[in-house]
Amino acid sequence: MATIETNVISLAKALISRPSVTPEDAGCQALMLNILEPLGFNNETMVFEDTTNLWARKGSTSPVFCFAGHTDVVPAGNLELWQTPPFEPTIIDGMLYGRGAADMKGSLAAMVIATEKFVNDHPDHLGSIAFLITSDEEGPFINGTTRVIDTLEARNEKIDYCIVGEPSSTYKVGDIIKNGRRGSISGEIDIHGKQGHVAYPDHVKNPIHLAMPALAQLSQSHWDTGNDYFPETSFQISNIQSGTGATNVVPGHLTAWFNLRYSTELDDQTIVDKVNAVMTEHQLDYEIKWTYNGKPFITEPGLFVSAVEEAILSITGITTELSTSGGTSDGRFIAPTGAQVIELGPCNKTIHQVNECVACEDLNLLADIYYQTLVNVLTPKT
Amino acid sequence: MATIETNVISLAKALISRPSVTPEDAGCQALMLNILEPLGFNNETMVFEDTTNLWARKGSTSPVFCFAGHTDVVPAGNLELWQTPPFEPTIIDGMLYGRGAADMKGSLAAMVIATEKFVNDHPDHLGSIAFLITSDEEGPFINGTTRVIDTLEARNEKIDYCIVGEPSSTYKVGDIIKNGRRGSISGEIDIHGKQGHVAYPDHVKNPIHLAMPALAQLSQSHWDTGNDYFPETSFQISNIQSGTGATNVVPGHLTAWFNLRYSTELDDQTIVDKVNAVMTEHQLDYEIKWTYNGKPFITEPGLFVSAVEEAILSITGITTELSTSGGTSDGRFIAPTGAQVIELGPCNKTIHQVNECVACEDLNLLADIYYQTLVNVLTPKT
Repeated sequence: MATIETNVISLAKALISRPSVTPEDAGCQALMLNILEPLGFNNETMVFEDTTNLWARKGSTSPVFCFAGHTDVVPAGNLELWQTPPFEPTIIDGMLYGRGAADMKGSLAAMVIATEKFVNDHPDHLGSIAFLITSDEEGPFINGTTRVIDTLEARNEKIDYCIVGEPSSTYKVGDIIKNGRRGSISGEIDIHGKQGHVAYPDHVKNPIHLAMPALAQLSQSHWDTGNDYFPETSFQISNIQSGTGATNVVPGHLTAWFNLRYSTELDDQTIVDKVNAVMTEHQLDYEIKWTYNGKPFITEPGLFVSAVEEAILSITGITTELSTSGGTSDGRFIAPTGAQVIELGPCNKTIHQVNECVACEDLNLLADIYYQTLVNVLTPKT
Repeated sequence: MATIETNVISLAKALISRPSVTPEDAGCQALMLNILEPLGFNNETMVFEDTTNLWARKGSTSPVFCFAGHTDVVPAGNLELWQTPPFEPTIIDGMLYGRGAADMKGSLAAMVIATEKFVNDHPDHLGSIAFLITSDEEGPFINGTTRVIDTLEARNEKIDYCIVGEPSSTYKVGDIIKNGRRGSISGEIDIHGKQGHVAYPDHVKNPIHLAMPALAQLSQSHWDTGNDYFPETSFQISNIQSGTGATNVVPGHLTAWFNLRYSTELDDQTIVDKVNAVMTEHQLDYEIKWTYNGKPFITEPGLFVSAVEEAILSITGITTELSTSGGTSDGRFIAPTGAQVIELGPCNKTIHQVNECVACEDLNLLADIYYQTLVNVLTPKT
């Protein structure tokens, strides 16, 4: 029988070789099911529009321990810059190269193989194990994890503990885990002025001049002071555009896009109210289109966090760091159900870039950490 | 012999019918020469690159009285919106329609016919009369009037008095004359930041956030208080752009275009120094590409201004208003030589628009005003 190590790497390679660019699954979930179904996992595939989702569960009692993740990958980008073909996984000097190696097919392989070993070693384990896998996390995501959760909630099927396999680590696998994520809200603001000839300032209202003090005030605002788990809420303008392209015409309007990553100290409505208050204070004629990308969540230290910390320490010797920094993940859809969510995956240094890679040794350690976490949660304390 | 009126309108129509879109002259200067050469005008055509210029002079003594203007017109624009074809001059209800009717082929006709009558009536007039005509005023203009002036200055040929036939009037021909123009200087500023993911504010330097306080300060600055002839210098940002189009990326740089219309209280260097000082005060990493569009000029009240004012009063009954507002004209190239420059032309309401037109009666009045100005300047006071 092949070792766990051989199986993790060979399964990772098999997944990487399927070019599952969002929202394609390209048969990745079927590869995972090939191993899970013989173990007794139920296969519930949920297709919503162009997205393929999987809810696979073994067991009918609680606690329900769920591995969550995505089979889709971002596009390869500039093929000329890849040293090996992005969908032909290649190992060089112990590093596995390919699109999705780190984000997050390596994790998917690790979680499946860890589960296989765990079920074989502990056939009478407590509770249930589940896999919630989507083929659209990187893209518009509206038909992915969020809809699977809606389906589960509608039938009162609860997740108690969830490991999201997103690449959380920095230098060594397990050095950082995410126990929460900031919320994200975006706005597209249109500020109106009055177009006219640049030589007739009395006949124009320059929207650039009108906007700048207000936008400067927003960019310099302190929205909160953060808390034990979150840094201070951050406001960033990502795009700004105004002008006709002519140098002698004052334009009639300005558009700016901004985003806030916010802590549990704030909510959407407070942010919306504050931005509107600043616009009104500066007497601007404006509209804002808001996009709610996800609320913040936190998994406070407790039994589950300890189970993961202990697994990492025992396998790698690392005392992991809890973090809520960085972007976001599908954990934001799972946490509101009451599940305790932790993100734990390999090093994220090369994600979304050319020559994405992951250390083979890290994938093996990750599988061991996942295995140990399952042991910590789903076997009785002796 | 046809009346002056008939000749002004028929010459205006002949000029309009030649589609002389910048930098084409399309034979307009030749039409003018057909009338000027028999009067004794020298024909010196100066072709620089794609631009055709005319320096036509009668007489060798001072004072030199010059009519200046351009034969080129802006494009017609949307043909479907023209009620009559733009290059088929048509009179409807006393209004002459066609591209260039107001800007400025009507004036060209008036100045030529006025000169014809003046030379016939006063063959022994004082000094010299000259015409400085270009086929590129509306466009890049670098091979137009400015190069003719360079040529004249190189041989020490001076203009004493100059009427630029640009359409200066508002409601009635002669109600406003320009006795100066503001300078114009433009800048294209590039402000550098550091690109990165919007969720990692510590790893980025947002050039939009960095730029706004500085640009706000510039837009709110008082550059001067103007003077008897000029309104306060005006600063306008015409275009601003920054961003990759992605909502989760802080861009690496921002570009803004701005323009100042400035009075004789300022000069280019003072403006450049002040903008650089503001950028430095805000510790920005930036470059600015400057474009010097023209220095301000003023023709203070004196004999020449009085001669024009008297001509307008006697022909129309209007007490004209001196103004320096609005855009700019080729007068800015002529004034630095020491010439006294006045802009006087028909009503400018429809210039650069579809259905450009001018009142036939206004062109006749304009020819009479030009004639009377010649009398005031080039015949002895009795």
